[in-house]
Amino acid sequence: MPALQVMNTADLRSFLDRVRERNTAFRAEGYQLNLGRGKPSPQQLDLSDALLSLDANSYRAEDNTDCRNYGGLQGLPEARALFSSLVGAPAAQIVVADNSSLALMHDTLTWAVLHGVVGSSASWATGGPATFLCPVPGYDRHFSICDGLRVRMVTVPLTGHGPDMEEVERLVVQDSSIKGIWCVPKYSNPTGEIYSDEVVERLAAMPTAAPDFRLFWDNAYSVHHLTDTRHEIANVLDLCQRRGHADRAFVFASTSKMTFAGAGVALFASSPANVRWLLGHMERRTIGPNKLDQLRHVRLFRDRAGIVAHMEAHAQILAPKFKRVQDTFSELLADTGIANWTEPEGGYFVSLDVLDGCAKRVVALAKGAGVVVVPAGSTYPGGKDPRDRNIRIAPSYPALDEVAKAAEGMALAVLLASSEAILAQRGEPTPVADVVAP
Amino acid sequence: MPALQVMNTADLRSFLDRVRERNTAFRAEGYQLNLGRGKPSPQQLDLSDALLSLDANSYRAEDNTDCRNYGGLQGLPEARALFSSLVGAPAAQIVVADNSSLALMHDTLTWAVLHGVVGSSASWATGGPATFLCPVPGYDRHFSICDGLRVRMVTVPLTGHGPDMEEVERLVVQDSSIKGIWCVPKYSNPTGEIYSDEVVERLAAMPTAAPDFRLFWDNAYSVHHLTDTRHEIANVLDLCQRRGHADRAFVFASTSKMTFAGAGVALFASSPANVRWLLGHMERRTIGPNKLDQLRHVRLFRDRAGIVAHMEAHAQILAPKFKRVQDTFSELLADTGIANWTEPEGGYFVSLDVLDGCAKRVVALAKGAGVVVVPAGSTYPGGKDPRDRNIRIAPSYPALDEVAKAAEGMALAVLLASSEAILAQRGEPTPVADVVAP
Repeated sequence: MPALQVMNTADLRSFLDRVRERNTAFRAEGYQLNLGRGKPSPQQLDLSDALLSLDANSYRAEDNTDCRNYGGLQGLPEARALFSSLVGAPAAQIVVADNSSLALMHDTLTWAVLHGVVGSSASWATGGPATFLCPVPGYDRHFSICDGLRVRMVTVPLTGHGPDMEEVERLVVQDSSIKGIWCVPKYSNPTGEIYSDEVVERLAAMPTAAPDFRLFWDNAYSVHHLTDTRHEIANVLDLCQRRGHADRAFVFASTSKMTFAGAGVALFASSPANVRWLLGHMERRTIGPNKLDQLRHVRLFRDRAGIVAHMEAHAQILAPKFKRVQDTFSELLADTGIANWTEPEGGYFVSLDVLDGCAKRVVALAKGAGVVVVPAGSTYPGGKDPRDRNIRIAPSYPALDEVAKAAEGMALAVLLASSEAILAQRGEPTPVADVVAP
Repeated sequence: MPALQVMNTADLRSFLDRVRERNTAFRAEGYQLNLGRGKPSPQQLDLSDALLSLDANSYRAEDNTDCRNYGGLQGLPEARALFSSLVGAPAAQIVVADNSSLALMHDTLTWAVLHGVVGSSASWATGGPATFLCPVPGYDRHFSICDGLRVRMVTVPLTGHGPDMEEVERLVVQDSSIKGIWCVPKYSNPTGEIYSDEVVERLAAMPTAAPDFRLFWDNAYSVHHLTDTRHEIANVLDLCQRRGHADRAFVFASTSKMTFAGAGVALFASSPANVRWLLGHMERRTIGPNKLDQLRHVRLFRDRAGIVAHMEAHAQILAPKFKRVQDTFSELLADTGIANWTEPEGGYFVSLDVLDGCAKRVVALAKGAGVVVVPAGSTYPGGKDPRDRNIRIAPSYPALDEVAKAAEGMALAVLLASSEAILAQRGEPTPVADVVAP
């Protein structure tokens, strides 16, 4: 493909005409494709169908607990042991909760705002709103939790191997209202980046003005590899302890994208003091989690090797879909100079950057062509991408041929919006009404 | 049994000696009995073992939703329809959530404190703490939610058919900090009382100083009958609407004591505006509930008739246990003038009142004899029963013969503590060390 920005105007106009024709043909197919949410496909869900059933008389935990009844706030010991390697903590420092680590993160931040955490002298709402650092682009639902609790958000750029630590260190040391940072440390949503050992080390060690600063460590994709390289990251709990900040990290994870997205289990891991803090608040909320679901997960996975094999099966379904996106984007967008996208080695997303000011238009054009993604801006706090350029692509749910089609629709939208934008910049506006869906 | 308070001192001393002998013999048996928590017995849980399994390929809802995947924040339509009669609202006004209505109540009150509710001009924490009316004796976990949110609690007496409405009406009209009242309107915990139509009517109609006053209507035992009389109460949502307070009632219920206590579903029902309010907050917390558990419940119960038949089976297990408590208390405590207890026609509890100042001592003596109940005072906010006289008895979990034994141990403790107290009042102290366990 040609580099659009160096094309002369006549050539660019005729290029735009050809792209429009192709887009019109695409629209005429009436596709309904969705690259929006990071949802497992039915084929992936099938891998865990053993969760549906427990034999009758098979509802007892190893310690003979009747999992049908009340109790067991911290989660079954065998479930905590099973997921120990996933969160990098001993079973005693793990809480296994119901479906949705989002809910755990929501509740944890809520209780911090209402009551403070271990080491706080007051609630996080005392003396004005708390502030969170938000590496961007990031996960919209993290931002939404902050929004709901009136936690101020300050963005910091991601570098490809974690947040810009110069900036993070500069901010946290000077502003005691900064109580935390959102981190998706492996196969980050949406950039796919993996935090380097140095970044984790610096996050664990850095001085902070707030004595009760917390890393909200959403390790959502720790075993969600897309290649044969099973990337590992530094153990944040160990590092925090070694650097004299034993209570700094709240680690979250879940099986939502390992088993059933709607019926998995969520995990919290932290220091013993933080686990006691969380359980102290949880016990006002519930008598205990759904232990049958925990038992189902223990029976499905059995052990660490079971988890690894299971995730390998996921990768075999997912990797070809990610490859289709790469192939399609390469075919249509390589060397155009108008788009960059990630090639993640794990996780659920491709992060696409287009020309400044074009993301909203790309998303609208794609929608017009029957390809839905999350709204442009979603990857930034308040839904506002200051450069209007980032788009999150989630290829997990559609079937393989649909992924290719959807990526094509997206790429055409990028070509259209970019050509228009470049022409407009040259004072050569183009009529646009005909390419947006009614 | 003789009336202790009119007995002469010599007779009372020799009565006490005989009771002590009996208590010593009871202690020597080394029982470990528990009348503490309202927990279903294994035999009750067995009734719902069909919940353990779903056939493979049977994970789809009526509208073809794949219940294994994300989504469906309000709950499955067929689950909402199934439980419609339970909460007295159309399916559109119901939210079905995960295990634990306690969690739903906790979250609802948390969001009210943080954000206010429909009709609030500010959060419930604005301008000082909110106040809740707490009919007593009541449910300790309600009080614990208030405690955690620094909601002030003001007790109002129960009358046998709901709270003292003169008192409630007097309080709510004069104090705009009073934002709500906890109600367990049928087979109340622990008194077993059933709110009269007049009480429900007055709660729906009464003027309140706070425009955003709420009834926290924990209808936990709506189908939990112990006799052939299936008591019905007035529909609070309908009455509130008719009285011009459409948004006044938050109705809660759950299947915790219908199916699996640890793996049931929780229900919220209210006005359309309140349902929107709740979902608006819930969607920051989770992408959706465990729909597979909802599907399991739909398959288990099928319809209203299925629920009725299922609860009949529970009653057949529970009613004999409640009868044992009645029989034992009658045998040992009738006409003694030192104890009153309820004869509930549903629910999970017997409420036992002893002489003022004796409840703590009774509970300690019972514990010494191997019979555990919740601490005296639990049925009051802050764990403080001002008259130290109320004790909650939960006979559901132990086997039938254990229930009878446990009730005997309790009754002996009542006789002991009361005799001692009466003698002490007469200036006739009794050595007590020997009857309390080490």
